[in-house]
Amino acid sequence: MTTERTRVDAKKLTDFSTKALQRLGVPEEDAQITARMLVASDLRGVESHGVAHLNMFYAKRIRAGVINVNPKPKIFSQSPVAATMDGDKGLGFVIGHRAMTEAIQRADKAGAGFVTVRNSTHFGAAAYYAMMALEHDMIGIAMTNAVARVVTPVSTKPAVGTNPIAAAVPTDKKPPFVLDMATSVVAAGKLEIAQREGTSIPEGWAVDKERKPITDPAKRVTGEGGLLPLGGTPTLRGYKGSGLGVFVDILCGVLSGSSASILKASDATNYDHFFGALRIDNFISIANFKKSMDEMIEAIEALPTLPGVDKVYVAGSYEAEIEKDREANGIPLHYKVIEDLQELAKDVGIEYDL
Amino acid sequence: MTTERTRVDAKKLTDFSTKALQRLGVPEEDAQITARMLVASDLRGVESHGVAHLNMFYAKRIRAGVINVNPKPKIFSQSPVAATMDGDKGLGFVIGHRAMTEAIQRADKAGAGFVTVRNSTHFGAAAYYAMMALEHDMIGIAMTNAVARVVTPVSTKPAVGTNPIAAAVPTDKKPPFVLDMATSVVAAGKLEIAQREGTSIPEGWAVDKERKPITDPAKRVTGEGGLLPLGGTPTLRGYKGSGLGVFVDILCGVLSGSSASILKASDATNYDHFFGALRIDNFISIANFKKSMDEMIEAIEALPTLPGVDKVYVAGSYEAEIEKDREANGIPLHYKVIEDLQELAKDVGIEYDL
Repeated sequence: MTTERTRVDAKKLTDFSTKALQRLGVPEEDAQITARMLVASDLRGVESHGVAHLNMFYAKRIRAGVINVNPKPKIFSQSPVAATMDGDKGLGFVIGHRAMTEAIQRADKAGAGFVTVRNSTHFGAAAYYAMMALEHDMIGIAMTNAVARVVTPVSTKPAVGTNPIAAAVPTDKKPPFVLDMATSVVAAGKLEIAQREGTSIPEGWAVDKERKPITDPAKRVTGEGGLLPLGGTPTLRGYKGSGLGVFVDILCGVLSGSSASILKASDATNYDHFFGALRIDNFISIANFKKSMDEMIEAIEALPTLPGVDKVYVAGSYEAEIEKDREANGIPLHYKVIEDLQELAKDVGIEYDL
Repeated sequence: MTTERTRVDAKKLTDFSTKALQRLGVPEEDAQITARMLVASDLRGVESHGVAHLNMFYAKRIRAGVINVNPKPKIFSQSPVAATMDGDKGLGFVIGHRAMTEAIQRADKAGAGFVTVRNSTHFGAAAYYAMMALEHDMIGIAMTNAVARVVTPVSTKPAVGTNPIAAAVPTDKKPPFVLDMATSVVAAGKLEIAQREGTSIPEGWAVDKERKPITDPAKRVTGEGGLLPLGGTPTLRGYKGSGLGVFVDILCGVLSGSSASILKASDATNYDHFFGALRIDNFISIANFKKSMDEMIEAIEALPTLPGVDKVYVAGSYEAEIEKDREANGIPLHYKVIEDLQELAKDVGIEYDL
């Protein structure tokens, strides 16, 4: 499938995305924040959350008036460590960036900061927000709820969204630890990618309304059945992925004064988030912490592997390798994504110059 | 297997366990804390972490001098929200109880409280500590690292311990949300139970050193291969369970100034923990929060199920039902556990009066 891809420069892609968003009415700074995060996902190989969504998700929802391009987010706070934010239906990227910045500022002063956000929209990849904590020598976390489409291990209808959890932890010389995981087996975006590339999906990712395995990704997109929670079956402890998904819904939906995924309309376009930052030097010296992180990662990387497997990657290391390559050589965009961006360029009246 | 079990009164079992621990040199209050937590696990049906461990884990380790029955834990703190504790090799229950109490007190004053603990020992079920936050209208979390015996999705040797995560969240009329999950498919204790009951284990729980599935639970206990991380294979996203396990190791082992599971000796008897408490009323009114929790749980419980499945349980609800029964009718102890407690009674010179 590499032949179907064209390498595109990250900086140019960011500028293009910024311009397109501005034409859609997004103020310059907000457009830049959003474009940077979309491209950051593609740079790290997380194509399920990159520019492939620019036209199909964000431009479409902005035009439909579902996303407010000039939001006035409000912050309510009764404590130095905690705040609740109303996102005023702004672009999830903009609201999320604002909320995570707030969490980091609170952690800087009080040692820890948590911001729960209601009334936001789709915020892209959770990793980016968690990673904002890294340069401050903090541990960052980010979560979001989403449209309910993940069944429990025993139900025939969805209970929660794919509700991802991201955590980022600074290191010394090794790439930072960055975990970003839907609490379903896979994120919905993985099915979109399979559909785009015309491939089937493995058994164990999604089921139909009778809980028979789905292998055609298009089927799931039409609303039959649901994604499986991490773990899958009761025997392999699907209740754990399911329970984590509910916990994310609690921190994002319930704690923010919104509601859990299951209580939202099935075509819900409003999302709730949760962000946290924890100062490391309140527990231990940063130098010792980072040294110890490197030692742990090196020990795991040195583990013997299955035949045919190069090495063990700790969360975030593989993405860091991809990023290095793509920063230098460009992001290999799938031709369908390129067609989509060309269509967007035409729609908003800018040149497709990538 | 119910015929092999005898119902035992919870209060009597607690008193018996307290007495046995006192005879082993544990001070009265500490013995009570420990006994209450062990029996609380059995009451909730979590037999992998109950009195079955009293003789085989704790008494044995106390006698071997591995657990310090008169610890002087030290607390280091540079912030109202954060503390690091050295557990002085005390009983994990006692150290954990002390640390979670500290986290709750800090949250009470500062809105959030986090305590990371090094140099402790096995602390039983993580749920108990998280649940300590419930009566304070806080969200509680508890984690621990453990001896490395969980492989990554591609390694042939273990990378992390079973490293459980527990979270407890208060509700109004519904049982509280209580998630307590090893980040492996199952906790090591589930293999002990299968061994005790002479049953095999399903494929997908553990593998041998060539990563072939193990179905004989005894095999794993002898140190061959390892447990699988939640998710299991790369296709079904075992990296997620693995990544969560590493994150637990970071918060417990690295942040406390100890080290990650992988860097400890394979017969390590020292464990590190992490506890957190978050005041709900810093975000939203407690009444609204609890009402919204109940609504979410009721909606999930009302989901249609697979044929043959009674209902969908939200994390903690099933355990709450078992607890109600066992509080009223006693805890059905397996005859091998009873034999073990009788042996303990003889060893420490108390009467087995259950």
